[in-house]
Order: sequence, then C-alpha cells, then structure tokens
Amino acid sequence: MHNLIILSKNAKEYQRLIEAETLPDLNVLAAATHPSQIDSRTACDILLGDTTLISAILDQLPDLRWVQTTWAGVEPLLKPGLRRDYQLTNARVVFGPLMSEYVFAYLLLNERRIIQRYQSQHEHTWDASITGTLRGKTIGLLGVGSIGAHLAYTAKHFGMQVRGYTRLSKSCRDVDQYYHAAELQAFTRGLDYMVNSLPNTSGTRHLVDSKMLAWLPPHAIVINVGRGSTLDEPALAAALTTGQIAGAVLDVFEKEPLPQEHIFWNTPNLLITSHTAAPSIPSDLAALFSENYHRFRQNLPLYHIVDFEQDY
Amino acid sequence: MHNLIILSKNAKEYQRLIEAETLPDLNVLAAATHPSQIDSRTACDILLGDTTLISAILDQLPDLRWVQTTWAGVEPLLKPGLRRDYQLTNARVVFGPLMSEYVFAYLLLNERRIIQRYQSQHEHTWDASITGTLRGKTIGLLGVGSIGAHLAYTAKHFGMQVRGYTRLSKSCRDVDQYYHAAELQAFTRGLDYMVNSLPNTSGTRHLVDSKMLAWLPPHAIVINVGRGSTLDEPALAAALTTGQIAGAVLDVFEKEPLPQEHIFWNTPNLLITSHTAAPSIPSDLAALFSENYHRFRQNLPLYHIVDFEQDY
Repeated sequence: MHNLIILSKNAKEYQRLIEAETLPDLNVLAAATHPSQIDSRTACDILLGDTTLISAILDQLPDLRWVQTTWAGVEPLLKPGLRRDYQLTNARVVFGPLMSEYVFAYLLLNERRIIQRYQSQHEHTWDASITGTLRGKTIGLLGVGSIGAHLAYTAKHFGMQVRGYTRLSKSCRDVDQYYHAAELQAFTRGLDYMVNSLPNTSGTRHLVDSKMLAWLPPHAIVINVGRGSTLDEPALAAALTTGQIAGAVLDVFEKEPLPQEHIFWNTPNLLITSHTAAPSIPSDLAALFSENYHRFRQNLPLYHIVDFEQDY
Repeated sequence: MHNLIILSKNAKEYQRLIEAETLPDLNVLAAATHPSQIDSRTACDILLGDTTLISAILDQLPDLRWVQTTWAGVEPLLKPGLRRDYQLTNARVVFGPLMSEYVFAYLLLNERRIIQRYQSQHEHTWDASITGTLRGKTIGLLGVGSIGAHLAYTAKHFGMQVRGYTRLSKSCRDVDQYYHAAELQAFTRGLDYMVNSLPNTSGTRHLVDSKMLAWLPPHAIVINVGRGSTLDEPALAAALTTGQIAGAVLDVFEKEPLPQEHIFWNTPNLLITSHTAAPSIPSDLAALFSENYHRFRQNLPLYHIVDFEQDY
C-alpha cells in the first residue's frame, strides 16, 4: 500500500480526479490546502502538490520516496540543505501546449496588427493596411526543454525558421539550427522573435541583458515565459523606450505581482500578462500523476525527473 | 510559344517573379495594372491577374486557353453570358495558411483574454484572472475547401474537436465529424467557434441567419472569412446585441468598405478587420502559376481548376 498526501490550493479537485482513476494500492492520507490541515504524516511515501506548499513539510515525512509537483518550477525544493533522498518529478511537460497557445497568440497579435485594428474600429475606420505573416519569419528559442520543443513544433506548423539556444542538447527535430554557449550573438542576429523558456539557474541570470538586446534587430519582439530573473528588467525597459527593439510580452517578472512603482507599467510597446501564460490544468496533472504512479509501483524510471545537480 | 498577359495591381511584381522563373517558351506580352495599357491582345493564350480586372477583357482575347486568377474569389467570371471556353484556375490554395493565422489569432485572442489583459495593464492592474485554452474546444467549419481544410489542420494542432459542414465532400482527415444539408442544427449544437469559409453560391446566401444563430450556445464566437453574403448582417447584429452569442470576428461584408452608417460600427462584441485576412502574396502566386504552367505545356490537368457548373 502507498500513502499519498495532496497539498495544493486545488487539493480537493486533485483528490477527486485521482480517486476517479482508481489507482491500485493507493490510499489518500490527506488532501489539504495548507500543511496545518494534515494530521497523519508518518506513513506518507508520495507527495503531490504545489511547489511552495510542499517545501514547508518536506522534512516532516520520514517515509517520503516520491514528490510530484503541480508546477514546472521547483526552485524552492532545490535550496542548499534541503533533503534530496527522494525522487522529484515536475509538471513541465503539460505546459508545452498551453505555452504554445500563449506565445503564438502574441506572435499572431503582432503580425496581424490586432491592437491597431481594434483602435481603427473604435474610430469607425475601415483599416485595410497590409498585415504580416509568420511564414518565413525566424523565431529564436532560449531553452529547448519540453516547452521550447513544443514552441518549435508550433513554429514549424506556421512555416517559421527555428533557432534553438541550449547548453548542450540538440535533440528537438523541429529546431532548424542549434546554438550553444558563446554563440549567443550569432543566435540573436536577425531574429524576428526571441522567446525565453529557460529555467532559473546560476547560468541564466540576466542572460538577456543590454548587450544581448543590442544584438537584436529593431523589429524584434522579446517574449518571456521562463523566469523573470533571466531578463535584466531595466535594460529591457531602456531598449523598448529607445526603440532598440520593437516590443516585448512578459508573463514573468523578478518580483511578482509587479510592484506599482515598477518602470514596466510605463514602458512603451510592452504587454504584461501577470504570470498566467500556462495555468496548471488539474486534469492534465492527474493524468501525469497516474501515469507516473504505475511506473513508481513497478520500480520503473519515472517520467519528468528533476536532476538535483542540474537544477532542472 | 505561349503568350501571357498579366493584369493586376501588382503586375510589375508578378512580371519580375515570373521572369525570374525563366519558364520555357513563355513570352510576356504585357504586364499592366489597367486594360487600357495593353496594346496587343490577339496572341494571348494565358491570362494571369486580379479577378475583376480580368473580367473586363475576357471577350477581347480570341486565343485565350487558360486564366489564372490571383484571388480565391472568381464570381465576376461566372456571370451568365460570359465565355466558358477556357480553363479557369484560382488562387484559393495559397490562402489556407494565411487564413489559419488570421482565424487562430482571433481564437487565441479570445481564449487568452488579450483585450481584457490590455485594458488591465492600461489601469496598472496585475490581472491574474484565469484564461482559457483551445484544447478540447469544438470548432465548426462551414465549408471544408482548401481554406477549411487548413483551418482543420491547425485546429487539430491545438487539440480541438473539428466539425465540418459541406454539401457532399468528406475527404479532409482533420475533420472529426461531417455534417451535410439538413444537419445544420446538429452541426451548430454546442460549438465554441464557428468559422465560415463557404464560397458565394446560390445555396449559401444568408445561410447564417437568425434561426441558425439561435442554435449556437451563448458562449459561441462566429468568424467570417468567406463571403459577406453568407451571413445575415442584421440578424448577427441582433444576436450580438442581445448576448445570444458571445462575439464575432468579420473580415468580409455584404458591402465593402463597410458604410459609415452600418449598424456593425456600433455593435458590441464584434471585431472588424476590413477584408485583410489573407492578402495575396505575389511570390506564392508566382510559384503556383509556374507549377501550373509546366502542366499546361504538357497538356496535363491543371491544379485548382474552377468548375463553371459548381460555381467554385
């Protein structure tokens, strides 16, 4: 028998979905929205939940063997000094399609001049000005994990050229050309769109800085769906204000919610979407948990394992 | 030797592109933006151009054997009394990908609440309200020609359920379920999105009327990229004003440009895009012409033939 604790703001929904799967030998010990609601912890060997909530009870579970997060981000579980004697799997895989919808919503918004059309209509003006197309445009992906790979897949669907910037990997066949390490300048040259989906590691902090922004052509659009820390925020605000690049769409920020006094609220050609690009969809998560549970029972390698050493 | 007349507002660009293909035995007799600029007409056996310009000189070309239009629409060439002793091919095939960009730009705009996000940002508000996803939603395609088929292909990419309403055909494998003739009510039931790409024929006039709009659920969005005449405009304005359906995106209208006094300028939840969903892209057209020219020379069946009897 395995004993599961669910600890999430959507705990009841996860419990309902998982119980509907009637997984063999699985007992739900607790389904709580806060650690204080959990009575019995000692028997728990599986923990499913939101990353920040999980980190609060991590050291109170002597029998813990597997943690499945409902988020893609796992940074709070990787802090020095925290236990690493369990298997950690995250939810990044379910975010690819959702992130693709978000990113391509904004790419198409830009090509099809939807904001301008909306304003023309407000003025009762028949606006037949020519719009653009994604076909033949070049997208640069900073990071080609499960999210970047899905972005590449959708980019090819729309006939785009795809560049990928990664540390080592070059396994995604939808990427036309890979760039690594010192090839950052070559990667950015001539990009129409640059999308960051890198995780938060020591090597990615402020990777997108004033130097890199200066390499982009003036019509480029920057999109951040990864981590706020990857982007030097004052440098981006400056690049947008001077017209060095044409626009940006940001879902993540160094501090969230974005403080009222932040320069971004008054930065031109910037769209802010308040960390909503890819909401966790409980039914997807439950299916992922269920698939991994069957593997866990049979001592098979789990899917979506987080490597504690690689930070992602 | 074959003699081509190009008659289009983009005549010079078509001439440049076609001459760059160095097609064997092809002589460009004229490349004009207006019929009055053409001196020699008698030798012309191939005509390439914009549908309305072509219709003006159709009866002045004794040797005409093939007409390639730069538009998808060919209605002016199908009027009773006009000659039909030549092969007519149209440009509909190049519009599929462009129409897909347009349609999915607006579907994603709706799911991702982009207009609302834009307004929240204007008010310096961190708007973390939940957005939707295309995955699992149902799209109904009125017409599954080359445009509808490409819409179906993109819809499957985003994980949607696809219904197709056609007269007879059911050949597109991206359509999950086909409906014909009297099955219009079953087709509309429960649709999240309904997209019209039907041609203008006697059977499609005001197909989307008050009765059909009443069958749609209140959250449905209607998109028209086909012909303005397919849609009963006062009926749609009424359905949008009373909230019978949630929204509409219209690229085509019964009269264009949309007259200043038209009710649509003051209709709520309506987006107007001024017949720009799929601009003809000369390089695509030149490639299509070139491909068909090789077949024409060899007396092979041309691609994209218009059936004079079927009206499309």
